[in-house]
Amino acid sequence: MTSGFRDQLPALANKTYFNYGGQGPLPTASLEAMVAAWGQLQELGPFTGDVWPFVESTVAGLRRRLGRWLGVPPQRLAFTENVTSGCVLPLWGLPWQQGDVLLLSDCEHPGVVAACQELARRQQLTIERFKVADLLQDPAATDAAVLQRLENALGPRTRLVVLSHLLWNTGQVMPIAAVASRLDQHPQRPWLLVDAAQSLGSIPVAEAAEAADIYACTGHKWCCGPEGLGVVALSERLLAEAQPTLIGWRSLSHEGSATSGFHTDGRRFEVATSCIPLFAGLDRSLELLEGEGTDAPRLDQIQARAGSLWQQLQGLAGVRTLLHQPPPAGLVSFVVEGMEPGVLVRKLGKRGLWLRTLDAPHCLRACTHITTTEAELAQLVGTLAEFTAPGLIS
Amino acid sequence: MTSGFRDQLPALANKTYFNYGGQGPLPTASLEAMVAAWGQLQELGPFTGDVWPFVESTVAGLRRRLGRWLGVPPQRLAFTENVTSGCVLPLWGLPWQQGDVLLLSDCEHPGVVAACQELARRQQLTIERFKVADLLQDPAATDAAVLQRLENALGPRTRLVVLSHLLWNTGQVMPIAAVASRLDQHPQRPWLLVDAAQSLGSIPVAEAAEAADIYACTGHKWCCGPEGLGVVALSERLLAEAQPTLIGWRSLSHEGSATSGFHTDGRRFEVATSCIPLFAGLDRSLELLEGEGTDAPRLDQIQARAGSLWQQLQGLAGVRTLLHQPPPAGLVSFVVEGMEPGVLVRKLGKRGLWLRTLDAPHCLRACTHITTTEAELAQLVGTLAEFTAPGLIS
Repeated sequence: MTSGFRDQLPALANKTYFNYGGQGPLPTASLEAMVAAWGQLQELGPFTGDVWPFVESTVAGLRRRLGRWLGVPPQRLAFTENVTSGCVLPLWGLPWQQGDVLLLSDCEHPGVVAACQELARRQQLTIERFKVADLLQDPAATDAAVLQRLENALGPRTRLVVLSHLLWNTGQVMPIAAVASRLDQHPQRPWLLVDAAQSLGSIPVAEAAEAADIYACTGHKWCCGPEGLGVVALSERLLAEAQPTLIGWRSLSHEGSATSGFHTDGRRFEVATSCIPLFAGLDRSLELLEGEGTDAPRLDQIQARAGSLWQQLQGLAGVRTLLHQPPPAGLVSFVVEGMEPGVLVRKLGKRGLWLRTLDAPHCLRACTHITTTEAELAQLVGTLAEFTAPGLIS
Repeated sequence: MTSGFRDQLPALANKTYFNYGGQGPLPTASLEAMVAAWGQLQELGPFTGDVWPFVESTVAGLRRRLGRWLGVPPQRLAFTENVTSGCVLPLWGLPWQQGDVLLLSDCEHPGVVAACQELARRQQLTIERFKVADLLQDPAATDAAVLQRLENALGPRTRLVVLSHLLWNTGQVMPIAAVASRLDQHPQRPWLLVDAAQSLGSIPVAEAAEAADIYACTGHKWCCGPEGLGVVALSERLLAEAQPTLIGWRSLSHEGSATSGFHTDGRRFEVATSCIPLFAGLDRSLELLEGEGTDAPRLDQIQARAGSLWQQLQGLAGVRTLLHQPPPAGLVSFVVEGMEPGVLVRKLGKRGLWLRTLDAPHCLRACTHITTTEAELAQLVGTLAEFTAPGLIS
């Protein structure tokens, strides 16, 4: 990382931050890009013939950039307000049949799980789960186990598999492309929905985004973009077979006509008015990240810091990392013996160190990004050592 | 209007603007409120124990303010990305039965119409329309005619009526409370969905918002808030009977648990991460509008300017206003004999005068807000006079 990038992040100036997987810090240049976009919208518009070229080029520019990041043609991308919308919206319009099985991993986000449950209730589908939360070993063993578990869980009625790319709780990376290949051999060709909330901006995503039917991302976590803008990559097959559900003028092939039919590209899952300056902000954040290197060296840096933290945590009495090996990306989850995670997170917060708790498994999670320094890791580990020293547990 | 309010609107400094119904100009103070909110989010967060009180008070403050504007308890409001989402999302989870009739006026926005068509296709419902586009007379006659048309259109299977409060094309105000009273007498008690895209910020809305089951608004038109944030007021009955469809952590009564059930208040129709600074921006815009007076005098001002424009258009040869009477609010639609509306809008735009075209009926629409001046009206009328003078039609 260049020193300039971290200097762009005021959120990091007054705290020691490990919640990139919750929300990333916003670069000053991205805020400035948003303010400039609002200025342009007022200068040219907000609703005039002069403003549309600016709006269209802002949206199209980000769509092209995200197409490069995701390795898919820009026309297969749909912008959404958040990653949940990207996961859920394409599901509702798929051609479900009573008795179809939705197969979800046990590490999916409660929002997506609840949406699948409601879909199942209404369409009389069945939900099944397959376990990946207990796969805590090295990548090769994890990949093999995931594929074996999937094999055991697939049935003749399986019509959808839901699996996150980077598990938000254990921090393991799932072999999405291999899962997709396996599903291609299944007579039903189940849809593959990938929650990529933790992936875009942290790990290389192109192979998985190309393989999945629904690959849903957000700009406000590892990409350090503004909150309120996400993107979902959709397969050709999904675009051909799924109808939009949340329909507005942006879904329509001619926005003035309800009978014009829907866009055949990703826009069929876009709805109505969104906040254009957010597009300018995310574009700037991605551009800044590009200035720090491509995705492979970015992951190397993230991994090195996560590995360093993981290693240091092994040396603390009473601390147990979830993973048995250094993490494959930037999520480091752990428990501290005899300390309730919520209490510990608040105690750390009082020292200006910010982690979060997770519910299942009930633990703490620290994220490392390219901005994370060894000094920050030392501060976290030192504070944990202090809190866990015998006689000091409050 | 105080002179200070117009000075807050940079969009009005370099053009003559009549597209408030498309998008309102953003006050500088509202942009500053958003920048300040982003600053606070970075100072306190973005994802820390210190930031949640700020986020919650920002959202709760706007919810309370909008509760006052809409005259409904804040807990019956759901925030949405735009007015379309507010219209459409609550519909999908209602307990439809095959053969139910959706009764839509012929003045609804294509996005909402297309969403109802798709809902009807999937649930095997029937769409019927009732005509209000031809009601161009005074308010009393219009109200009576709407109720008579509704009476004729209602059938035993009618389960939903869709009617905008302020029609975006003709500019007529619909008698929403009276329509709701009539529907209450119907054995099926059809749901009443009101598209209030043109209403909030331009006309008093409390009576209609209280009467409707779904009263969907946006902040970015007459309220002069940022694009990308809307609100929908929902009836107690709808909240009790409609399931959410686009489900995320904000819909869940405990965000960490997929089995916790949904919020029983408006939040059941909220989804996941939204852009918090937009809440601060809209709050500031509404506060500025409050400083200009309550809704009744605001409408008086808007009406006076629309009436003045309507009157002056009567004096132009070849110009025909859609309404036979001065408009009840701020929408003034008209056609110019022998001139294609799109061509005319572009010609006016070259002179810095911004109106828009509508497709059905194919016409031009000029909006007047409290910021509209007599000088602006004179400029528009003078330019139209020039363009329509014999021998000058290009």
